Amino acid sequence: MDWKPNRYEEKPLYKQITDYMKRKIERGEWGYDTKIPSQRYLASWFNVNRSTIVSALQNLIAEGYVEGEYGGGTKVTYGKWEKQSPLPNWTAYIEKGSHYPNQPFIQKINQYEFEKDLIRLGTGELSADLLPKKLFQQLMSSADETDFHLGYSEPKGDVQLREAISKRLREKGIYTTPSSILIVSGALQAIQLLSLSLLERSARILVERPSYLYSVNALQSAGIKLIGIERSMNKPLSIEKVEQLKNRFDLSLFYVNPTFHNPTGALMGEDERKALVENSIRMGLPIIEDSAYEDLWIDEKPPLPLKSYDKSGQVLYLGTMSKLVSPGLRIGWVVGQEGVIERLADTKMQTDYGSSTVSQYVARRWMLSEKYEEHGAYVRKMLKKRRDFMQFLLECYFSHLATWTIPKGGFYIWVVFHFPLNFDKLFKKGVEKGILIAPGHIYDRLDRTSLRLSYSYASLEEMDKGLRILAELIEKEVLMQKKENKL
Amino acid sequence: MDWKPNRYEEKPLYKQITDYMKRKIERGEWGYDTKIPSQRYLASWFNVNRSTIVSALQNLIAEGYVEGEYGGGTKVTYGKWEKQSPLPNWTAYIEKGSHYPNQPFIQKINQYEFEKDLIRLGTGELSADLLPKKLFQQLMSSADETDFHLGYSEPKGDVQLREAISKRLREKGIYTTPSSILIVSGALQAIQLLSLSLLERSARILVERPSYLYSVNALQSAGIKLIGIERSMNKPLSIEKVEQLKNRFDLSLFYVNPTFHNPTGALMGEDERKALVENSIRMGLPIIEDSAYEDLWIDEKPPLPLKSYDKSGQVLYLGTMSKLVSPGLRIGWVVGQEGVIERLADTKMQTDYGSSTVSQYVARRWMLSEKYEEHGAYVRKMLKKRRDFMQFLLECYFSHLATWTIPKGGFYIWVVFHFPLNFDKLFKKGVEKGILIAPGHIYDRLDRTSLRLSYSYASLEEMDKGLRILAELIEKEVLMQKKENKL
Repeated sequence: MDWKPNRYEEKPLYKQITDYMKRKIERGEWGYDTKIPSQRYLASWFNVNRSTIVSALQNLIAEGYVEGEYGGGTKVTYGKWEKQSPLPNWTAYIEKGSHYPNQPFIQKINQYEFEKDLIRLGTGELSADLLPKKLFQQLMSSADETDFHLGYSEPKGDVQLREAISKRLREKGIYTTPSSILIVSGALQAIQLLSLSLLERSARILVERPSYLYSVNALQSAGIKLIGIERSMNKPLSIEKVEQLKNRFDLSLFYVNPTFHNPTGALMGEDERKALVENSIRMGLPIIEDSAYEDLWIDEKPPLPLKSYDKSGQVLYLGTMSKLVSPGLRIGWVVGQEGVIERLADTKMQTDYGSSTVSQYVARRWMLSEKYEEHGAYVRKMLKKRRDFMQFLLECYFSHLATWTIPKGGFYIWVVFHFPLNFDKLFKKGVEKGILIAPGHIYDRLDRTSLRLSYSYASLEEMDKGLRILAELIEKEVLMQKKENKL
Repeated sequence: MDWKPNRYEEKPLYKQITDYMKRKIERGEWGYDTKIPSQRYLASWFNVNRSTIVSALQNLIAEGYVEGEYGGGTKVTYGKWEKQSPLPNWTAYIEKGSHYPNQPFIQKINQYEFEKDLIRLGTGELSADLLPKKLFQQLMSSADETDFHLGYSEPKGDVQLREAISKRLREKGIYTTPSSILIVSGALQAIQLLSLSLLERSARILVERPSYLYSVNALQSAGIKLIGIERSMNKPLSIEKVEQLKNRFDLSLFYVNPTFHNPTGALMGEDERKALVENSIRMGLPIIEDSAYEDLWIDEKPPLPLKSYDKSGQVLYLGTMSKLVSPGLRIGWVVGQEGVIERLADTKMQTDYGSSTVSQYVARRWMLSEKYEEHGAYVRKMLKKRRDFMQFLLECYFSHLATWTIPKGGFYIWVVFHFPLNFDKLFKKGVEKGILIAPGHIYDRLDRTSLRLSYSYASLEEMDKGLRILAELIEKEVLMQKKENKL
């Protein structure tokens, strides 16, 4: 990971770090007025004691590179005295952009996931050892030179991959030709493309609440408002309520996650699906069906996708390879009316000129591979074991603190505590103790009682350790709350 | 390519086509009110005579699936009588999207490039036989299971790839650490990310005129205005003029393509570069340096990039693997101040969750490969041959019609005709005669006299044939113009 000071060099560590930071400043990587990362962060980054960082910073201050500010911050001053003219103040630019930054929470999670050895209790991906790495290495190794290409991709994506996908979709009752399929870099890009291509700024769309969509800013940044509809794990969706909201807010679309919903794990039943498609046609409320977790059933196959009940092109269906096979491959697909697909493809061409042909080639070979079914069966078996184990752990450590419902598939258990908690504090304390959690307010800003747990990523040992730590932290917090109330 | 009727089946071709189109309509791929592609398009798509298409459409009309409209259009009517309710009118949605569709011209070019055997005289990519396909197949074949991963990528991209890039950048006088580099899916995505992250809607940026940026809507769709500065192949950029425009329009950035400019092939000299960087710091006008063609020098190495003269973080530098190595890999990079890179990385995470790890892995191995230099030398040699040949052909066929300047590298020759031409008509006629051209008005809306020729894609034989056809078409057009003036 990046540069680290070398313990075997003669030059002392603090001096090495001073020189490194000087170079970064002199080259403009840390420009004038940049706020330097905290001492704690730098110490962890360079893997040294905090005192070493303090020495390095003192050096930099003495040489006029940075200035310590009251309150602990340190800012770059280099360049101020040298030039007579305004230096680029990128900070101002950064604040101007129309795309919202990620929530600080999610930024932190993104960082911690790559920087620290934390037990990840909420991460939405399969553990690396469940991904078919060996198989993919074989698929790559046996790449036939005549079979893949290095040139640009077609606007809708490699036609052979689209054919392979349309074949797989038939198994799910979705009959479609390759020209109604668009290859994208995962479902998230699909959402971004449709927000740019099909919705005007200030459009309103319906989402379940809580929803994964609250955790990404693709729609909000395009000026689109999310209207939430309460969604319980155990009750079917109220069509009446959908209709009320549709009329009240002039809704453009309904974004639904009917199969092993993220974050609650809820599963829509067959009758519920049929009713939703029928009624959405009646109401004129098109549906975006995000099916990311569809193949991750544990107890039994879920009902067919909404798209399979749709003969009018009402449903835009999003699929992905990220959840079962490889998040890193960045291959997903959108199925819908041909004109819609063409508009999305056109926007995609202007956004990134199409998905990687190398990825598409590997994805195609995977879709056609005989290992496809085998891998799915293996992952489902392992997920069952993991889900059951997490359930067992929850009963051990959390039964007095919270309730939860066991999902029939997907990655997540939505844990609802008996009382509100300060999740910002818990998150911070958790990181200190070596665990990373995904608080419910990421998926519903008003939520103060829930947590998205995932049994997909951490190992069984880690789950045990992590949940024990978490329970202890929460118990302490509860004790503290009680004490404060007593005082 | 997609479905085609089968000549060896008993069912007649028109009937097969009728059934295929019925299925598409019944499943909602062609929804109610969709305009069906033209007869000519369908005939080419299914590779049948136009009369076969006419029979199929007559069948569909008789069965109530479509309706012929006055003027030749055909629209889907299926579904109208069946439901009592409004069907989703995606057409309306498509028109609402805030992202502009591609110019019809570019849409057509994108389509034709994949649909027809046309001689591509303006395409901005290397011919497939110049791309290192065999080498890439080897890189993939020797993939080491322990060396790549299938999980999500870090926000800034694979750190080993960023290290490999920072090493290569040193050869160009750019000293930077991996934490100031962001991996993107090519320069186009970089432009999109910065338009979303650093610029407010209604911001104005300076671009050379003509410019490749006029051909993509990434900036315009984000509400950003392009202000053009006339750029001649042979004269240095006027700093005075830049300053005037900066003050007049309150410009936020200057997007520059200093090395083998797209579309004119212009090359900025060393002194010009130094002056531009110095003055942009003085004026407070940050620079986006798009260096896509930098490695494609033919006669001699170009001066060092603008970024190498920049010690204050004034310049955001965009690099790509698309032009020299593989457009399909979708790997590029942005180098800039760390805070800016982090903001762009955050937006990228929200856009597509990072670039493909498989692509990044192959790209990293390429960057570190000993074949890297060899391939560059080979492509440069071949480009020289191609450029010289195109120059020869231009002299043969175009010397009485136009002027042009020979570029010292890159892909393009900018041909300026002695008189305005109707390029819309020429484009259409060209397609009929088997050639695909890139009219100058794609890169400068007011342009009526120029053409972007590319010597990178078509074979020498195709160049000869294609330019001959083009010259003939233009001569006819000129004759016609003269006649009309005479009448």
